[in-house]
Amino acid sequence: MLKKLQNSSIKDCNRSELNVVCDELRRVVYETVMQCGGHLASNLGSVESTVALFYVFDFPNDKIVFDVGHQCYAYKILSGRLEQFSTLRKAGGISGFPKRNESVYDAYDTGHAGTSVSACIGLAKARDLLGEKRNVIAYIGDGSFNNGLVYEALSSLKILNTNILIILNDNGMSISPTVGGMYDILSEIKGNTQSENIRLLENFGLTYLGVKDGNDVDEMVDALTEAKSLLENGSVLLHIATKKGKGYEFSEEHPTNTHGVPPVGSPKDREYSEVLGECLCDLAQKNDKITVVSAAMKEALGLSEFFEKYPERAFDVGICEENASVLCASMATGGLKPYYAIYSTFLQRAFDEIIHDICAQDTAVTFCIDRAGISGADGETHQGVFDLSYLSLIPNLTIAVPKDTEELKAFMEFSETYTHPLAIRYPRAGKVLFDTPKTQIQVGKWEYLHRKDENKSAKVTVIATGERCLIIAMKVLQNLQKLGMDFDVVNARFVKPLDTELLRNLDSEYIVTLEDNVFLGGFGAMLDGVIMQSGKACKVKNFAYRDEFIPQGKIGDLQSEYGVNCKEIEEYLLEILQ
Amino acid sequence: MLKKLQNSSIKDCNRSELNVVCDELRRVVYETVMQCGGHLASNLGSVESTVALFYVFDFPNDKIVFDVGHQCYAYKILSGRLEQFSTLRKAGGISGFPKRNESVYDAYDTGHAGTSVSACIGLAKARDLLGEKRNVIAYIGDGSFNNGLVYEALSSLKILNTNILIILNDNGMSISPTVGGMYDILSEIKGNTQSENIRLLENFGLTYLGVKDGNDVDEMVDALTEAKSLLENGSVLLHIATKKGKGYEFSEEHPTNTHGVPPVGSPKDREYSEVLGECLCDLAQKNDKITVVSAAMKEALGLSEFFEKYPERAFDVGICEENASVLCASMATGGLKPYYAIYSTFLQRAFDEIIHDICAQDTAVTFCIDRAGISGADGETHQGVFDLSYLSLIPNLTIAVPKDTEELKAFMEFSETYTHPLAIRYPRAGKVLFDTPKTQIQVGKWEYLHRKDENKSAKVTVIATGERCLIIAMKVLQNLQKLGMDFDVVNARFVKPLDTELLRNLDSEYIVTLEDNVFLGGFGAMLDGVIMQSGKACKVKNFAYRDEFIPQGKIGDLQSEYGVNCKEIEEYLLEILQ
Repeated sequence: MLKKLQNSSIKDCNRSELNVVCDELRRVVYETVMQCGGHLASNLGSVESTVALFYVFDFPNDKIVFDVGHQCYAYKILSGRLEQFSTLRKAGGISGFPKRNESVYDAYDTGHAGTSVSACIGLAKARDLLGEKRNVIAYIGDGSFNNGLVYEALSSLKILNTNILIILNDNGMSISPTVGGMYDILSEIKGNTQSENIRLLENFGLTYLGVKDGNDVDEMVDALTEAKSLLENGSVLLHIATKKGKGYEFSEEHPTNTHGVPPVGSPKDREYSEVLGECLCDLAQKNDKITVVSAAMKEALGLSEFFEKYPERAFDVGICEENASVLCASMATGGLKPYYAIYSTFLQRAFDEIIHDICAQDTAVTFCIDRAGISGADGETHQGVFDLSYLSLIPNLTIAVPKDTEELKAFMEFSETYTHPLAIRYPRAGKVLFDTPKTQIQVGKWEYLHRKDENKSAKVTVIATGERCLIIAMKVLQNLQKLGMDFDVVNARFVKPLDTELLRNLDSEYIVTLEDNVFLGGFGAMLDGVIMQSGKACKVKNFAYRDEFIPQGKIGDLQSEYGVNCKEIEEYLLEILQ
Repeated sequence: MLKKLQNSSIKDCNRSELNVVCDELRRVVYETVMQCGGHLASNLGSVESTVALFYVFDFPNDKIVFDVGHQCYAYKILSGRLEQFSTLRKAGGISGFPKRNESVYDAYDTGHAGTSVSACIGLAKARDLLGEKRNVIAYIGDGSFNNGLVYEALSSLKILNTNILIILNDNGMSISPTVGGMYDILSEIKGNTQSENIRLLENFGLTYLGVKDGNDVDEMVDALTEAKSLLENGSVLLHIATKKGKGYEFSEEHPTNTHGVPPVGSPKDREYSEVLGECLCDLAQKNDKITVVSAAMKEALGLSEFFEKYPERAFDVGICEENASVLCASMATGGLKPYYAIYSTFLQRAFDEIIHDICAQDTAVTFCIDRAGISGADGETHQGVFDLSYLSLIPNLTIAVPKDTEELKAFMEFSETYTHPLAIRYPRAGKVLFDTPKTQIQVGKWEYLHRKDENKSAKVTVIATGERCLIIAMKVLQNLQKLGMDFDVVNARFVKPLDTELLRNLDSEYIVTLEDNVFLGGFGAMLDGVIMQSGKACKVKNFAYRDEFIPQGKIGDLQSEYGVNCKEIEEYLLEILQ
């Protein structure tokens, strides 16, 4: 059935056949995610509504924007990508998110939450001004619907005076269960179709249609047909209830665990998030001023235990990264000691608040930044490769990068009495523990992991920041030592401030920097500036990612391909050490 | 009366005396703003409610957060700062915004919109956890109330389960008239106290109280007394209607013109915003795909004429910088040619959307970034000194910096056919027109403003970006030429990409960079990186702002004090040229 659909339209199906299509889609999604990893639960939940969308609307002339984008698998398969779908999330393969450069069916790229309604208003306005005929549809989950950007978009709907369809896919979950004011409003509407809360939505210029069963393809076809006709007269919000993970028992019962799943058989490493969670619990036990804030990610960030043990000091505010930041700033000015755990890429959303609320007021907020550096299979929108750059430009902020999970513990201890903004960034997986004597963390102090001679600098000093880059440095050292060569290796565990004393005393001819971040504005670039301004006659060679958006792929492969290539580093060192 | 209050409490006044206090406050505010510049209309409008707040609440134990913060003058005067108030917005003087380091009465620093509700929730939660007794109050205008962050905060009120008072000061204006969904809702409530829309606010866990006359001090005392008692049982929203500019006829009639006013007698320069407005109108006339988006700042950005002439292509979405960005991205993907005009400091709010929506999709959005560089009297929260840094780290983005208003015209022409994201940044005032032959704008191509010898590099090349820095460069050149010295001066009109060809051909012994931006991640730092990686044996000296938040003061003074000091530059050049 699906194969057949590759060369024809789903509109040619009998309505009775649509359930067959759904079942097949669900199977392909499930099997592919088991092979390739990916977002399982949300994609299982959106199967029926997607099939109905194809039945009722005309893609790609009609345009759909998937909010976050992690529920577009069925859409991709139905829009001619069944054959390639087995390459999901692999280098050069099908993206797990909508990508305009992958298909004309993908109208707008997403990855972060809350952009779909704005995007549809813009697309619809373009349609109006260019005199085109098409429907524009936002497909958004209730978790995203709580994001402030959605509210800004809704507020502007009347101003831009255009017609869009918003499909609010309400499964009661973001990555964690959805919480908050709008969710309460939606819940009330779900339970009471005569609810006065519907008026709230109408105030924004939306005709409300719902609640429909989003997992019933027949009901979806009828609802979308009705929505389509209403759309001629104004914007419509179609509220559908779905079950995240629909159709696979394990996933239905454990939607949080199956939000994103790794391919079967992946090695399970000790993750930084686990260590973070333990540290926070330990700190909270002795210090009752410690609070933890999360933006809908508590499980993935290792915070579940903290939320259970200290519910009165643990706050999951939903996908509201900005609010989370200001809450931290104000809790700190009010005398608490807040920790804000978040993925690197999502912290971008709070950039202004980091400057304006947290750093300008020099508050004692600690950021625990997970998934820093290349994050792999989720691609462009999820790489955490900008944080060292966008954070280091901000006054008053200290940036720490642990070399391993043990050093994360040391930084967490350090953080408890630190009275300024502090960002600690680390990747997901901890792969090694470096065998070094435990040293006291001091602001802006680095450590040598290896010295050729304890009393003077080697000809070359490799300064690397973060576990991944230090592993590369030590591996290259091992290889070159076998050839009788040697160099110094420094763990730059603070990216800001740099260790100016160590740098002043260093008299290597060459410094080589390694980082899991873009070059521009990053660690190596900062060091270039310091060396250049110091007048030191030493040459600095920087290995960092070049100035491009980095697509999906394996982490190691992408590191190599985009600028932190072990072989190249070794060759460079070979040349200057020979 | 006011003088007397410096040593006693407003609570000692008879209620009948409060009107006298209001009149005196209004006079002091007006006279001070005429002398020092500042926000006039919003501060005149908030006089009565501020007096009533002091009458009913106990500051500084009770805490108040002013949203944006530009309506706190009466509060400052009443909290013991009458004597110093004549130093308003001057270097070392009273800030035009709340500043914790200025007074214990200032509970939380603000400057950007929408943070107050989050901040109060955090402060209130800190109070609860620390077992303190105090009231926490957000004072927010209806313009800010449209910002997505406020909505995120409201959504989290129940989650954090704490009690705050929100005073919604509804004057129907942000800087431009307030627009959008929530404003319509509030308007309806204002006209109908039995409105069902009140339920919307109650859904967020707020008891609604209103609408009260915010310019009637008696009514305000009663309303705040009621609010205070309600606050014991939950959060309260007190809706007050005020007249922006209340009490001064000119200001009441022209609230937009008097939102911020310069001191009387300031020179009136040709502003970049005027030129921008003309260029956009010219472009729109010949290209009907051009649209303009503004976030509540159309007058200050020079867009009034465009909004009048092309209302169907001009969109003011209120103080919603993120929504504005995504609208631009999607309009561009939909085939339009959007321009987004905004102040440098406020663009920070859209950082993630610039990356995720505009640049990752490589859309043809043009940012017109006004008030770039040091902006002066508004202080820390308004300096536009980070944009070169936070923009240059983003792939696909081109950054242009015109040397004068004529070059802005050239860039605007260039932008029309440019198909990638483009940021054009400039300060407010255009001071000079450089006398150079008109050259074609080519991406990443700089121009020499002066060469010692047309065929080879001088010993020193000064590379400056932006009008202010080029003025300094040319002034120093003039001075040194009188002493028989000479050097080359380059207009780095693109900060990204850098002119790698010019740099490759350049063989000066010294390069000196000047920029109106912080050093970290900025223009000079980028150049250091390029020179360092090229292996070129030339010395680069960077003049840029050091890593601190820059307070209020005169623009020229602050430039000098924070790192771009004409005298120091001259001394440095004298030394190496002698």
